[in-house]
Amino acid sequence: MAKIKKINHVAIVVRDIEESLRFWRDQLGLKLDHVEDVPSQASMVAFIPVGEGEIELVQPTDMDTGLGKYLEKRGEGMHHLCIEVDDIDGMLDDLKAKGVQLIDEVARDLPGRRMAFIHPRAANGVLVELYEIVE
Amino acid sequence: MAKIKKINHVAIVVRDIEESLRFWRDQLGLKLDHVEDVPSQASMVAFIPVGEGEIELVQPTDMDTGLGKYLEKRGEGMHHLCIEVDDIDGMLDDLKAKGVQLIDEVARDLPGRRMAFIHPRAANGVLVELYEIVE
Repeated sequence: MAKIKKINHVAIVVRDIEESLRFWRDQLGLKLDHVEDVPSQASMVAFIPVGEGEIELVQPTDMDTGLGKYLEKRGEGMHHLCIEVDDIDGMLDDLKAKGVQLIDEVARDLPGRRMAFIHPRAANGVLVELYEIVE
Repeated sequence: MAKIKKINHVAIVVRDIEESLRFWRDQLGLKLDHVEDVPSQASMVAFIPVGEGEIELVQPTDMDTGLGKYLEKRGEGMHHLCIEVDDIDGMLDDLKAKGVQLIDEVARDLPGRRMAFIHPRAANGVLVELYEIVE
C-alpha cells in the first residue's frame, strides 16, 4: 500500500499575491521561495517553505475557472490540503477499490510531480490533493 | 525574532469524529494517534500524525460555541492552520508592533503548549494559530 510521507503544502486562495505577502512574508516572517506563473491552472503561485512543507498562495488569473469562481463565492482562505505519497497510482487504485469519490481517477503529470484530487465530499469538505514527487 | 519551525497541524472541523475516521484512517490509511476530550474548547479532537505535523479532526461538543456556529454556518472543512514557533511571546510582540490584528494579544497556557490566534482578517481569511511547545 502507498505510504503517506508528509503534508506537502496547504494552499490558500488569495486575490493578490503581492498584497498577501505583506502578511505571510513581511509580518509573519516566512521566506518567499519564488512566485510561479502556472498557466495550465490559470493561476500565479507563491511558494513559501515552512519546515518540511510549504504554504502556497494561489491567485487565480482567470475568474472563469473553478478556482476563480471559488474565490468569488467563498472569499479568500484555505483552498486545499496536499498530502505527499510515495506511489500515487497505488494510492488511487486503493481509494477506488474502497469506493472513495475522486476528482481525478488517473494522476495528472506535471513537471516534477504527479497529482490527483480527491473529492471534498469524500473528505469532510476538504479538497485533498495527492502528490508524488518524481525526479 | 521568533523562529518559525513547521506547520504543527491543520485542523478540520467535522460533525462526527468516528464517521470522519472512515476516510482519514480507513480509506486514506493514516494512523490515528488518539482522540482527546478538550472540554476547555468544547470539542473532541482526533490527532492524526502526518510527517512532522498532524491533521486534527475537531468535533464541537457544544453547538453554541464559536466552533459549533462555524460548523453550522460553513459546514465541514479546514478550520485553522497552526504554525509552531520557538518563542510565542516574541512573535506576538513583533506582530503587535507591526499592527497585525490578533485574537489573542497574550498567549494562552495549555498543557504542553502555549497558543494564540491571529485574526483571519489579517491573514487572507485563514485563522492562523501560533503554537509554542513547552516541556
